[in-house]
Amino acid sequence: MVPTPSQTPPPPYCAVIFTSTRTPVDAGYEETARRMVELAAQQPGFLGVDSARSESGLGITVSYWRSEDDIRAWKRQEEHLAAQQSGKSNWYSAYQVRIARVERAYGMPF
Amino acid sequence: MVPTPSQTPPPPYCAVIFTSTRTPVDAGYEETARRMVELAAQQPGFLGVDSARSESGLGITVSYWRSEDDIRAWKRQEEHLAAQQSGKSNWYSAYQVRIARVERAYGMPF
Repeated sequence: MVPTPSQTPPPPYCAVIFTSTRTPVDAGYEETARRMVELAAQQPGFLGVDSARSESGLGITVSYWRSEDDIRAWKRQEEHLAAQQSGKSNWYSAYQVRIARVERAYGMPF
Repeated sequence: MVPTPSQTPPPPYCAVIFTSTRTPVDAGYEETARRMVELAAQQPGFLGVDSARSESGLGITVSYWRSEDDIRAWKRQEEHLAAQQSGKSNWYSAYQVRIARVERAYGMPF
């Protein structure tokens, strides 16, 4: 199944842009990544998430949130904190996190 | 070669988050995608670009810009306008464009 680009409510809302490259360590990665998407979707203010990793190794995950406060709360969620720590120690060779405010949006839906 | 996540100057700056799914039409796509990255990098205010497409078909490209005016100028660039038209007509089955202002950023560089 091809995932479709997330549909989100009209702006303004917030986005977390997470770019990363992986280490060769796979243990626990896929399972945790899936669990974090499932868990994020249960948090207050969650609006959606898009994720892609190319064969060359660069990954981009963008999650959408109602407010910066919702993003801060998610960052501090207990199970998510443990996943962040494993990410830094084991799975990512480099990453960047950018917190942004979406001002305008348009597109061609399915 | 594994591309590394883009390094950008300290915020604030702007980002264009482009998510898409592709049609089966490949003619001209890779060449145009490469050319657009090359051309974007020559535009005033360009700060960087990250791009990934997963095997499942979802693509995410995030480009970073000094200002919204720089983004507007790039959107109107002549060769880019033609590429946008081909994208809508031929290559994308769905897409979303989000224009955002990056407020905070942090990470673990190489």
